[in-house]
Amino acid sequence: MRKSDVVWHNFEVTREMRNRLNNHKSIAVWFTGLPASGKSTLAHATEKRLYELGIRTYTLDGDNIRHGLCSDLGFSKEERDEHLRRIAEVIKLFIDAGIVVLAAFVSPLKEQREKVKSIIGKKDFLEIYCRCPVEICESRDPKGMYKKAILGEIKEYTGISSPYEEPENPDLVLDTHLLSVEESVERVVSLIKKRML
Amino acid sequence: MRKSDVVWHNFEVTREMRNRLNNHKSIAVWFTGLPASGKSTLAHATEKRLYELGIRTYTLDGDNIRHGLCSDLGFSKEERDEHLRRIAEVIKLFIDAGIVVLAAFVSPLKEQREKVKSIIGKKDFLEIYCRCPVEICESRDPKGMYKKAILGEIKEYTGISSPYEEPENPDLVLDTHLLSVEESVERVVSLIKKRML
Repeated sequence: MRKSDVVWHNFEVTREMRNRLNNHKSIAVWFTGLPASGKSTLAHATEKRLYELGIRTYTLDGDNIRHGLCSDLGFSKEERDEHLRRIAEVIKLFIDAGIVVLAAFVSPLKEQREKVKSIIGKKDFLEIYCRCPVEICESRDPKGMYKKAILGEIKEYTGISSPYEEPENPDLVLDTHLLSVEESVERVVSLIKKRML
Repeated sequence: MRKSDVVWHNFEVTREMRNRLNNHKSIAVWFTGLPASGKSTLAHATEKRLYELGIRTYTLDGDNIRHGLCSDLGFSKEERDEHLRRIAEVIKLFIDAGIVVLAAFVSPLKEQREKVKSIIGKKDFLEIYCRCPVEICESRDPKGMYKKAILGEIKEYTGISSPYEEPENPDLVLDTHLLSVEESVERVVSLIKKRML
């Protein structure tokens, strides 16, 4: 293009402009907890509710990340860390794009969640702890993974052969074995609304 | 959550629903061409115009990808391929989220662009070739990279010591040294509108 035409800053669409167009702010809502504690279901149910409120959202979980962006990664400590790093970087882009991101990942270690939070930025990050006794998670076991872990067919499975470190100061705790999905969603949505004002 | 509450498919927000909320479809617009051929400027200028039309967009380029999602990658053939693979996977998520994605990457090899296209999906992909003689790109050289490449300080620099394979059937060719930014943007936007109907 002609040199005189190149006035970069005039072409910028900022996060603030996108938030204005959408009529809402953007933020990350991170669901952590044991496998089968209800993270992904709650993320999707929250998204559905936000959609009904006219809010632009997207949900990231194992289903759309493990087969795509992170299909090259296995389950070693290093690879799990890299998996979460990439997710955090993608969330950062989505937030910049004006989207409310729901993310559902076991993320068992405090150190991992801190890393994610530091990449995304503290002010744009909500941590929701889906708290559920491991026996109940085991009994749900939708993918038969707990069974395999107990039989030793899967190594280092969180809750069985690998630790889950409870969040110390989550923005919200949901006892998913005591609350209905509707009740949980209501609490998450009211937290999001408060932070988006 | 209570087992009876878990009815997954009821909670799904689909791409079609997001498109309906936004009142427009989502698509990827891929700008390819030599370094300094005007890709990134045009992507941002197009985004600005789409924003004015009330369309939800996001621009991906070296600035927001190399320092974040791909900060672990260098410039070997394998790393450049992985760089583009991740970008394509992220674009796929953005399209699913209802966003029109503008992407500006040299992507010099036909094979690379085909890979990107196959990940994103042919029907969601527009290829824009920013065509500009290398001498003019060299003379622009906003980051002083051509100079370094000519001096041999950078190896395998596209256009100097590494080939650029011209697209054979791009959806649009822009001779960026002959057109103004405004003229180019107008052509891109009219192409996008046609594909989004």
